[in-house]
Amino acid sequence: MTTDAATVTSPDRITWAMSELFSHTGGPALIGATTGSSRVTLTWEDRQQADFTLSWLRDHCPCTECRHTTTRERLYIPLELPEAAPAAHLEDGNLVLTWADDHVSPFDAGWLRQRQAGQPTGDAVPARRPWAEDFAPARVAHADFVQDAAGERQWLTALLRDGLVLLEDGPLADEEVSRLAERIGPLRATNFGARFDVRSKPNPNNAAYTAIGLPLHTDLPNWRQPPDIQLLYCLENGAEGGESTFTDGFAAAEALRERSPEAFRLLSETPIDFRFQDDTQDIAWRAPILTLDHDGQLLEVRFNNWIRDSLRLPLDQADAWYRAYIEFWHLVHDPSMRLEFSLQPGEMIAFDNRRVLHGRNAFNPNSGRRHLQGTYLDLDLLESRLRVLARST
Amino acid sequence: MTTDAATVTSPDRITWAMSELFSHTGGPALIGATTGSSRVTLTWEDRQQADFTLSWLRDHCPCTECRHTTTRERLYIPLELPEAAPAAHLEDGNLVLTWADDHVSPFDAGWLRQRQAGQPTGDAVPARRPWAEDFAPARVAHADFVQDAAGERQWLTALLRDGLVLLEDGPLADEEVSRLAERIGPLRATNFGARFDVRSKPNPNNAAYTAIGLPLHTDLPNWRQPPDIQLLYCLENGAEGGESTFTDGFAAAEALRERSPEAFRLLSETPIDFRFQDDTQDIAWRAPILTLDHDGQLLEVRFNNWIRDSLRLPLDQADAWYRAYIEFWHLVHDPSMRLEFSLQPGEMIAFDNRRVLHGRNAFNPNSGRRHLQGTYLDLDLLESRLRVLARST
Repeated sequence: MTTDAATVTSPDRITWAMSELFSHTGGPALIGATTGSSRVTLTWEDRQQADFTLSWLRDHCPCTECRHTTTRERLYIPLELPEAAPAAHLEDGNLVLTWADDHVSPFDAGWLRQRQAGQPTGDAVPARRPWAEDFAPARVAHADFVQDAAGERQWLTALLRDGLVLLEDGPLADEEVSRLAERIGPLRATNFGARFDVRSKPNPNNAAYTAIGLPLHTDLPNWRQPPDIQLLYCLENGAEGGESTFTDGFAAAEALRERSPEAFRLLSETPIDFRFQDDTQDIAWRAPILTLDHDGQLLEVRFNNWIRDSLRLPLDQADAWYRAYIEFWHLVHDPSMRLEFSLQPGEMIAFDNRRVLHGRNAFNPNSGRRHLQGTYLDLDLLESRLRVLARST
Repeated sequence: MTTDAATVTSPDRITWAMSELFSHTGGPALIGATTGSSRVTLTWEDRQQADFTLSWLRDHCPCTECRHTTTRERLYIPLELPEAAPAAHLEDGNLVLTWADDHVSPFDAGWLRQRQAGQPTGDAVPARRPWAEDFAPARVAHADFVQDAAGERQWLTALLRDGLVLLEDGPLADEEVSRLAERIGPLRATNFGARFDVRSKPNPNNAAYTAIGLPLHTDLPNWRQPPDIQLLYCLENGAEGGESTFTDGFAAAEALRERSPEAFRLLSETPIDFRFQDDTQDIAWRAPILTLDHDGQLLEVRFNNWIRDSLRLPLDQADAWYRAYIEFWHLVHDPSMRLEFSLQPGEMIAFDNRRVLHGRNAFNPNSGRRHLQGTYLDLDLLESRLRVLARST
């Protein structure tokens, strides 16, 4: 055991390091701690009270035996629940518990305050906001993104909130998309490479590499873990047609839930097959079109008519599933909820591939050149980047 | 519309290409097709019968208008269900439907046979097999893996079936792990890089980079999409201790489901927080320890005591959750279900990080050198590789 918890100085009072890199200092001091057989009741100087279980407090001990001092990781393993109440006393407005085995656990008052049961944890990552009918994507200048933490935060915040953001006034430079992506994290490589070129090609293995129109879709739903964030950087767009289209798949799904609960249920509970095959790959996965979390909130949309594989359903469920699919198709393509615009050379669109559907109008490859460069990133690392940038403010 | 479906020759009869790269040829010819208002009833020459809905048949038309001839992707979009029954006739034992709008859909008899409702689709990917008490990992020689498709198939099959496989007798060459991985697919890069070195380091940001013992865990449960497959290649292992440990997390979870259904329910329905922080990253995700699919089958285990973040649960649920966690902890570490062995230089262990937990005993960094190199791969691409290798047999 140890009592020499590292301390940091705050303007108000000495506070104790809790193996956290985000702020928990400041705020009211503790003025009371009462231990019971399974809980400790704490009172802060503003008279607010909160209970913590003994199991929780023992598990969260921040001492140097229970937390690694450099990795900050938990070393303590909760192999049993505390059987006896600890002795509690306050030191400088913070809590010190002494357990039956003489282990001492020092807790910062502000850190405990942040962790009252039922309280949300503050997070720099914004909540998702569904697109309204007049939604227009936020625009951030390339120069602001690369030169200024505030510009990068603006770009990240819009992308995480809206699922889509435009970067503008960038250079017409090969691989600029990779350089921008690597500021955030490593490229997420797929069977189409770490970085791909979207233009009309001979012998395409993918509809994106033709000149045909692409109805709205998500990429790679045939992967068990499809890439999260797609970046598409426009280098040339001189062909007739080829406008980009986007819609908020979560908003479309919520509209379906509202209008046709049974269709929503079918699309969220019926796994279907997706499969991509070419000479060197055969990538297949089975999942519903809509994936929900335990609370019924949307986690993911998988929607890609090209690589829907043979539908394997009991015969008497097929027509109902198709009707639900058709209804969702029409909601997804509802013009009032759809963005359509021509990407300009030097612009980059970034979007959440597991939320926002993307497509494009057909273009005439003989009328001019159209060339986008694309890559994928992990959403985890965008959120991480935003949290780290928020530390310094 | 088109009637000139591409044809391929089989030993038995002419069969029709169905935009598939896996085999559907051979097998009995069709001898009857009866159309009803919503279904077509087919009879093969062995008298087996199956029904297909009109909606399904129209959606799966393989003609060159409905399927792209080079990408093989579906171009047809099911915007409405067929209202009238098509005319059906047989050609050379295969089915030809002519719809009310004169569109013609040619279907191969063997392809339809594979797709009867309720039939599983054949797949080269083996079913997962839980470890028995006497489980020992399959071993494949490095030379067989790199020189022989059969060796590579053996390695892939064991890894996908058991979640773990050993490669042996490899060279003591820096980056060999990356060369082996790239035979399958691109490296899955994380905040620890595309390729990482596991050895004792000064100022570690992760317990793996110390010499301490590591209880069984999965990597990166703080990512919404943790890496699937981990490869660890042993270059040196001369330190005292440092034995590798593994257990089948799915088998442990099934043992929990059998023994304590309520504990299993708590761990599969209670999302908890995982979080990793260092100077440049703050990666956090909220998910249950056990993730199930719609049928209650295990999809993923997230188990990592170091980066469990503060537990956010209603006060009256905390003790029950900790009891369930402790019970699972003991099942996971049950010596009768755990592998323990020293990786030898030139050996590489590969395992499914979302199924199999890994750990190591403490080692004495002053007694000798221990150096592993690791990377991650996407399971999708291992399965794909196995399917492609299976095409040629």
